Amino acid sequence: MRSTKKYTVITGASSGIGYETAKAFAERGKNLIVAARRKSKLERLKHEILERHPTLDVVIRTVDLSALEGAYQFYSGLKDFQLETWVNNAGFGNYDSVAHQALEKIDTMLRLNIEAITILSSLFVRDYKDVSGTQLINLSSCGGYTIVPTAVTYCATKFYVSTFTEGLAWELIESGAGMRAKVLAPAAAQTEFGKKANNVEQYDYDIIEHYTHIDINFWRDEICKIK
Amino acid sequence: MRSTKKYTVITGASSGIGYETAKAFAERGKNLIVAARRKSKLERLKHEILERHPTLDVVIRTVDLSALEGAYQFYSGLKDFQLETWVNNAGFGNYDSVAHQALEKIDTMLRLNIEAITILSSLFVRDYKDVSGTQLINLSSCGGYTIVPTAVTYCATKFYVSTFTEGLAWELIESGAGMRAKVLAPAAAQTEFGKKANNVEQYDYDIIEHYTHIDINFWRDEICKIK
Repeated sequence: MRSTKKYTVITGASSGIGYETAKAFAERGKNLIVAARRKSKLERLKHEILERHPTLDVVIRTVDLSALEGAYQFYSGLKDFQLETWVNNAGFGNYDSVAHQALEKIDTMLRLNIEAITILSSLFVRDYKDVSGTQLINLSSCGGYTIVPTAVTYCATKFYVSTFTEGLAWELIESGAGMRAKVLAPAAAQTEFGKKANNVEQYDYDIIEHYTHIDINFWRDEICKIK
Repeated sequence: MRSTKKYTVITGASSGIGYETAKAFAERGKNLIVAARRKSKLERLKHEILERHPTLDVVIRTVDLSALEGAYQFYSGLKDFQLETWVNNAGFGNYDSVAHQALEKIDTMLRLNIEAITILSSLFVRDYKDVSGTQLINLSSCGGYTIVPTAVTYCATKFYVSTFTEGLAWELIESGAGMRAKVLAPAAAQTEFGKKANNVEQYDYDIIEHYTHIDINFWRDEICKIK
């Protein structure tokens, strides 16, 4: 039997924007389903949230969404939950020229940043579009509106996300759906993004990053204003 | 030993814009490598070209580029050819809302419209970027610059293609490469696109299509002006 509690799903919740987004929704009294590959990081998040909000339910799901069957199984494994908000945050970047980029990493990035987000958005919309108050939030980037040199392929994935989500938002409004779809397009934030995108162990945003970047604590305050 | 002849590669050459593009390059005296799934259509194309241009070399490759291993094998199978122009034309569309779209077809569309084009572009650029006179032409669409209602996911794939190719074009110029990258973004053309995108056997562009569409013979004349 489906629980009467409502849940907010956040992918890529083990660190960075996903981690802070989970805490922000907890602050607003939302039960959570947090998903990522790294279980220990999700357990730390759950512990941190329950210390402040002991009455909330925080459900952990370990999944690699860059495998498409993982995305489908993850979604179908949530059928007993009543979902309210879905945040497709999982994703990573890559800094390199097209001529030099490592195609295995690029393949994984395309599956995670594009295919998983498309599958999960479509399934959530299919089931919940007529439920008033539901929302889909997809993480794009400033790079989803402007092409950043040395991150062309990553930016192309985020242009995809912006286009897909903006088009979907319009489709939902036009069809009188109860759901709303939203794009988040942050500037570079001080997360693990820099390390992963550059294949390095340490990445100092203050020294290296050429573009405006935001402190992750500022981000946590900002995301509270979404809903 | 690599042939001294230069070749133009065209994917999705069995029909529509790919078929006409092959004929257009043949008119300019270019040897061709034409690729698609349907061998009989490629043979018809080869026959048609050789009737007018008997001295040209037309090489047929049957491949399904929506399977990534197919894309890699296709590229590595061309190592004995000297390539001059690469046209990533293979792709298809889908008309449906995000809520109703068939995800298996969408998965295939993402692999063909996004992943194959990224892999083939990257491999071609890696090998040929310093060769003066080479060019990469990626097929986007008017839908790669404007979101078309009922074709949101397709448009998102074409925004990806536009962004990726524009960013790459800039990267090549900035790095002093010999290669140029170009986006083609046609309006709806009277090809098999409409049937495939709508899952129907017949599609009358004059009756159904809401947007400006172009006669395929006009397209053939236009593409001659590319280079």
